[in-house]
Amino acid sequence: MGIVVQKYGGSSVADAAGIKRVAQRIVNTKKAGHQVVVVVSAMGDTTDELIDLANEVSPLPPARELDMLLTAGERISMAVLAMAIQNLGHEARSFTGSQAGVITDAAHGKAKIIDVTPGRIEAAINEGAIAIVAGFQGVSQTTKDITTLGRGGSDTTAVALAVALEADVCEIYSDVDGIFTADPRIEPRARKVPRISYEETLEMAAQGAKILHLRCVEYARRYGMPVHVRSSFSEKEGTWVVKAEDVHQEDQNMEAAIITGVAHDRSQAKITVVGVPDKPGEAAAIFRAVADAQINIDMIVQNVSAAATSLTDISFTLPAGEGQTAMTALSRLQESVGFDSLLYDDSVGKVSIVGAGMSSSPGISARFFEALSEAGVNIEMISTSEIRVSVVVAEAQVEAAVNAAHAAFELGSDEIEAVVYGGTGR
Amino acid sequence: MGIVVQKYGGSSVADAAGIKRVAQRIVNTKKAGHQVVVVVSAMGDTTDELIDLANEVSPLPPARELDMLLTAGERISMAVLAMAIQNLGHEARSFTGSQAGVITDAAHGKAKIIDVTPGRIEAAINEGAIAIVAGFQGVSQTTKDITTLGRGGSDTTAVALAVALEADVCEIYSDVDGIFTADPRIEPRARKVPRISYEETLEMAAQGAKILHLRCVEYARRYGMPVHVRSSFSEKEGTWVVKAEDVHQEDQNMEAAIITGVAHDRSQAKITVVGVPDKPGEAAAIFRAVADAQINIDMIVQNVSAAATSLTDISFTLPAGEGQTAMTALSRLQESVGFDSLLYDDSVGKVSIVGAGMSSSPGISARFFEALSEAGVNIEMISTSEIRVSVVVAEAQVEAAVNAAHAAFELGSDEIEAVVYGGTGR
Repeated sequence: MGIVVQKYGGSSVADAAGIKRVAQRIVNTKKAGHQVVVVVSAMGDTTDELIDLANEVSPLPPARELDMLLTAGERISMAVLAMAIQNLGHEARSFTGSQAGVITDAAHGKAKIIDVTPGRIEAAINEGAIAIVAGFQGVSQTTKDITTLGRGGSDTTAVALAVALEADVCEIYSDVDGIFTADPRIEPRARKVPRISYEETLEMAAQGAKILHLRCVEYARRYGMPVHVRSSFSEKEGTWVVKAEDVHQEDQNMEAAIITGVAHDRSQAKITVVGVPDKPGEAAAIFRAVADAQINIDMIVQNVSAAATSLTDISFTLPAGEGQTAMTALSRLQESVGFDSLLYDDSVGKVSIVGAGMSSSPGISARFFEALSEAGVNIEMISTSEIRVSVVVAEAQVEAAVNAAHAAFELGSDEIEAVVYGGTGR
Repeated sequence: MGIVVQKYGGSSVADAAGIKRVAQRIVNTKKAGHQVVVVVSAMGDTTDELIDLANEVSPLPPARELDMLLTAGERISMAVLAMAIQNLGHEARSFTGSQAGVITDAAHGKAKIIDVTPGRIEAAINEGAIAIVAGFQGVSQTTKDITTLGRGGSDTTAVALAVALEADVCEIYSDVDGIFTADPRIEPRARKVPRISYEETLEMAAQGAKILHLRCVEYARRYGMPVHVRSSFSEKEGTWVVKAEDVHQEDQNMEAAIITGVAHDRSQAKITVVGVPDKPGEAAAIFRAVADAQINIDMIVQNVSAAATSLTDISFTLPAGEGQTAMTALSRLQESVGFDSLLYDDSVGKVSIVGAGMSSSPGISARFFEALSEAGVNIEMISTSEIRVSVVVAEAQVEAAVNAAHAAFELGSDEIEAVVYGGTGR
C-alpha cells in the first residue's frame, strides 16, 4: 500500500488514444493496491505550438509571460487525463504545480525547486483519489508568479514529489523500454540494463544518452529515491536507477560488469585555436571570452608547444548550436591574443564508455583504444572521469566506434530486444 | 487618470494579428493617461476545441476537470496579449482569475462571484503596468479549486473587476458597434443607440438581442457601473449602458424616445396542451412536470374553456432545444391529467418592443398591434412587462414584424450605419 509516483511524457499522451491508454495503466496501478500520484507533460507538440504562437506576437517573449503561456500545456493534459481516469470509474483530481506545492525560485524558464509542500496531494490520495499533477511548473516563493523548470522539468517534478511524499518509487515512462547498453538504433545487440547506479546514469546522460535528464537524476541521488525507467507502450520491467550498493543486490552473480554502457553524442563541434603564444594568461583569455558568450564547453586539449616557435594549438568541444556564437567571440580576440587562425569542425562525435567497475579495473582505457584502433577509428581527443572514458572521433566513425566498444566489453545480448516506439517527451 | 477596464471577446483575439491589433488599442488607452485593466476571453474557437478534446476521452467530463481544462484557453490568450503589449514597449502582466482575486462559490461550470480582492491588480497598475486578467474564471472560496463562471462569464468578470477597482468605466469590446434599435441584419435602417438604461438592456437581452449577457448587466446595474459597449474593429463611440436617470442627461432634446429598440428571438418553440380539464391543479401538474425536467418556460397562455366541454387549451413557449425533453415529460402525464393531445411548433418567433418611456405613454401596445396587423402579421401569444411588449408570431413573419415595429415607432435613421464584423465572443 505504498505511494507510487508515475511520470508520463508528451509522447505517451500525444492524443486522446494515448491518454486513454495511460489512464488504463494508472488505474491498473491503483487496483494493484497503491496510492498513485501522476506527473504529466504537455500533449505531444503542444509546447512547440505555444512557443510558435508567442513568436508570432513577440520576437523575444518576456519570460514571465512565456511561463504563464507554456503552463497551459500541462493544464490541458492533466485535466483530460483526470477525465479519462474518471471515465474508467476511478476518482481523479488534477493539480497545477502551484496547487501541488511545487515552490521555486523566481528564475522564469529555468526555475529551481526550493520546497515541495504537497498537502493537497496527500489529502487527495488519502481520500482514495488518484492525483494528477502538472509537470514542469511551479510557483515562485517571492513573487507568487507561475514559473517553469526548464529542460527535464517534468522528470524533476516527479522525483521531487516522490521524495516529498516518501514514495516507494518514481516511475518515469517514455517510449523506450529502459536504459540500454548503447543506442539500439545504431547497436542492434544493445541490451537493456536491469539496474544502474545514479552515478553511471549521470555519466551516461551527460555523454549524450537521451534517457533521463541530469537534473532529475541528481535530485533522485541526493535523496536516494529509486527511479524506474520504463515504457508506457509495454508491460515489461524497465531499468531501475538506484544507489551503487543496490545495483547488484539482487544478482546471483556478484561479479559486476565492468562497463555498464556506451553513450554517444553527435551534437558536438570542435574549435581549434591555431598558433597561440605559449605564455601565461593566453588560454585564460580565450576561455573567458567563450564563457562570457554563455557557451558551455566540454573537452579541452592543449598541444605541447613546438620548441622552435613557442606557439601551441588549443582545441575544445562545445554544442554545435553554439558554434557560431563562439567563433564570433573568439574572432574579436585575434589581435589581443595574437593567435594565427581559428578552425571549426562540426563533423565530430563523442563516444563514451561508462561503468562503476572501471575504477577498480586497470586497463579499461587501453582495451577501449585498442578496440577503436582495430575498427580503424582515429581518436582526436580524450577525456576521462572516475567512471567514464570519452573520445572525440570523426562523426562518420561514431557508429563504428560504438559497435567496437560494445563488442570489446561484451555488452551485447544474443537476441535483439530493444524496441523504440516514437519521439521523446519533455 | 482614472481606471478603465476593457474586455475583449474571443473574436477580437482570434489570431496573432487580432492580438496585435488589440494590444495597440490597449496601449493607446494607456497613453491617453488611464490606468488600464484588460479582461480577455479565449482565442477564437479554443474553448470549443478543448470541449471536443474532453469529449474524446469522456462522454460526460467531470465538472471540476472541465473547468481546469477550459481555463487553459484564457491562460493562453492573456499571456500572448501581455507579450504583444510588451513588444510595443509597455509593461504588461497577466493574471489568472485566481491571481486577480476573483473568488467564487464551488458550482463548477456556472460559479457565482462572491468576492473580488484585486490586490495584485492594484499593485500592478500602481506600478505603471497594464494588467491582463483571464475572463470567465475564478477560484472557489471553500475548495480552492479553479472554477468557471459559465455563459457571459468574461463580461461579468470585467464588470466585477471594474466595480472592485472603482473604475470610471467598463468597456466591452466585440465585433459590433454597440446596441442597435433592431438587429441590423434584418432591419437595414437600424440605428445605434447612444445611451440606454440597465433595465432596457436587460429586457433587450432577455428578449433575444445578442448584446450583453443578462448577468453582466445585472451586476453593473446593482453597482451603477457604466458599461460602454463598442467594437474593437473601429474607433467609433459605441453604446453607453447607464442608470435610467442618466440616459437623457446629455441630450439637448429632453423629450425621450418612448421605444428604445425592437428585439427578436427565433430560438423559441411553442407547446400546446389540448383539452385539459378545467379544474384546479391541472395547470400546476403540467408546469411542475416541465419544471422538474429543468426546462425554462417563457410565455404562458390559457384559453377560456369552452362551456360545453369544460376543457381548455394551455400553450407555452420554451427554448426550442429543450422541446424534446419537455414533450417527453408531458407525455407521461397524459393519463393522470387526462388531456387530449400535445402540439409542438418550433416555427415560431418572438418580437418585442422595449422602452422605459412606455410606462408613462398609454396606447403603445395598441400602436404595436396595429402595425403588425397592417403588415399582415398574425399574433399568436402576447406578454408584457413594465417596459416591454412581446408577441409570438410565425417564424416566417418575424422579419416583417420587426420592420413594422421599427417603422411604427420611428426608430430608423435615414442612412445605414450598422456594421457587423463577424462572429460573437464568449
